[in-house]
Amino acid sequence: MSQMERYTVTIQKDLLRRFDTLIAARGYTNRSEAIRDLIRDSLVTEEWARKGEKVAATVTLVYDHHTPDLGDRLTDVQHHHAGLVTASTHVHLDNDNCLEVAILRGESSKVKHLAEKMIALRGIKHGKIVHTTEGRGLE
Amino acid sequence: MSQMERYTVTIQKDLLRRFDTLIAARGYTNRSEAIRDLIRDSLVTEEWARKGEKVAATVTLVYDHHTPDLGDRLTDVQHHHAGLVTASTHVHLDNDNCLEVAILRGESSKVKHLAEKMIALRGIKHGKIVHTTEGRGLE
Amino acid sequence: MSQMERYTVTIQKDLLRRFDTLIAARGYTNRSEAIRDLIRDSLVTEEWARKGEKVAATVTLVYDHHTPDLGDRLTDVQHHHAGLVTASTHVHLDNDNCLEVAILRGESSKVKHLAEKMIALRGIKHGKIVHTTEGRGLE
Amino acid sequence: MSQMERYTVTIQKDLLRRFDTLIAARGYTNRSEAIRDLIRDSLVTEEWARKGEKVAATVTLVYDHHTPDLGDRLTDVQHHHAGLVTASTHVHLDNDNCLEVAILRGESSKVKHLAEKMIALRGIKHGKIVHTTEGRGLE
Repeated sequence: MSQMERYTVTIQKDLLRRFDTLIAARGYTNRSEAIRDLIRDSLVTEEWARKGEKVAATVTLVYDHHTPDLGDRLTDVQHHHAGLVTASTHVHLDNDNCLEVAILRGESSKVKHLAEKMIALRGIKHGKIVHTTEGRGLE
Repeated sequence: MSQMERYTVTIQKDLLRRFDTLIAARGYTNRSEAIRDLIRDSLVTEEWARKGEKVAATVTLVYDHHTPDLGDRLTDVQHHHAGLVTASTHVHLDNDNCLEVAILRGESSKVKHLAEKMIALRGIKHGKIVHTTEGRGLE
Repeated sequence: MSQMERYTVTIQKDLLRRFDTLIAARGYTNRSEAIRDLIRDSLVTEEWARKGEKVAATVTLVYDHHTPDLGDRLTDVQHHHAGLVTASTHVHLDNDNCLEVAILRGESSKVKHLAEKMIALRGIKHGKIVHTTEGRGLE
Repeated sequence: MSQMERYTVTIQKDLLRRFDTLIAARGYTNRSEAIRDLIRDSLVTEEWARKGEKVAATVTLVYDHHTPDLGDRLTDVQHHHAGLVTASTHVHLDNDNCLEVAILRGESSKVKHLAEKMIALRGIKHGKIVHTTEGRGLE
């Protein structure tokens, strides 16, 4: 783990008070942690903007499992991008609807491309990608 | 499944051509499907804006599993919101870093609140929520 | 202006170094200012989530000024929401295309509603709202 | 203006009904127009993702005009990026706070860079960029 450093932020009293109220409502017990989270979130956004960076992502898909062939096509598209899908989890929402979330890792443009292809499959009702990180350098 | 309907959209030739190029690059093989996806995405956004709506979500978390007590605190916060977490999947990114994705279901404001609390936990490096749907009425 | 306060953030050396690189690239000369901007941005997002809050916004519209009646309809919709539009600026992009940006102030749900109506007008090619603030309590 | 084309979308009855309700609430009187807006919005997002594309943007800034030198620094940064700022409008929100919105045009990465620099200036309380378009090819 990286060494800790302490530094001083100058900030207006009222601004700090409003921030403290906001982060308490979100469940933070520690102001430094809330600020580190804001910092890390800017860094992850930046990581995805750089070409060739190795990243992690999740893709959330909601679909009707009765859609003909959808299961096969989902498997196919993942196999055509072998090595990008680390794991996936499937839950039954009701008799018709499923939610599946896949965890992807790899070069950012390849990960984006695979996620777009999964979301584009006929029968997927809703799909969203989360851009996240492999965590290195963010301790 | 809901009955199909056909309707006619009037659109500029050039606009349609540019859209066809864009969706082909994303992997769509069918223009109607691409348009239905745009429509469904607006509906899901709207679903989350209404109070009291029952929704589904995923929360993606990246953290260092050496952080003292983080595992316990993650379990605790989920137990204090019993019934909201349907499943969760955990993968090891490297010796230090884990990615965990939890599938949540429930009333939208409760789901948001639990997700914020998980993301706020000390030791979570990056957290993001995906607002999705239980899929009813989106066939 | 609110009184200044100094407080200490504890943070990992490497994380701080990466943040310093990022903010330098964005033109920040001062780390406290970058952190205050992250804090203020979370507060503005929260302001818009609360009902009944008085906010400011801008709506950016791109359109073809040859579209029949569009100018009149734009004026009409603004008059039906008298008091919300503070100013608007219009530039000619080329022979056909205009960009107009309107500055709105008022209760957040009314401002959103007016912006949606402007964006929905036939002939508007692209429209986007920016949620911002009247600035009080954000010094 | 580009020639119009008519094409048929196949869609589920229920989905279409929900979409009609949503767009009516937003002020659309015409379903084709709502769908064209969804299509154009995807195209503008894509335009900004391509390198070297010529785009338009607006930057909304809220600040306290008592901040020493801020006016000068705002002018300076705009002059160092001559040719990118087409117009700007300034309104007084109250005794202290101003809202300024600048209209930018140019190559997307330069426009982004200038907007980031403006937002990073000390004394700017809140800043947001809107990625929009010069409108060509979006009729």
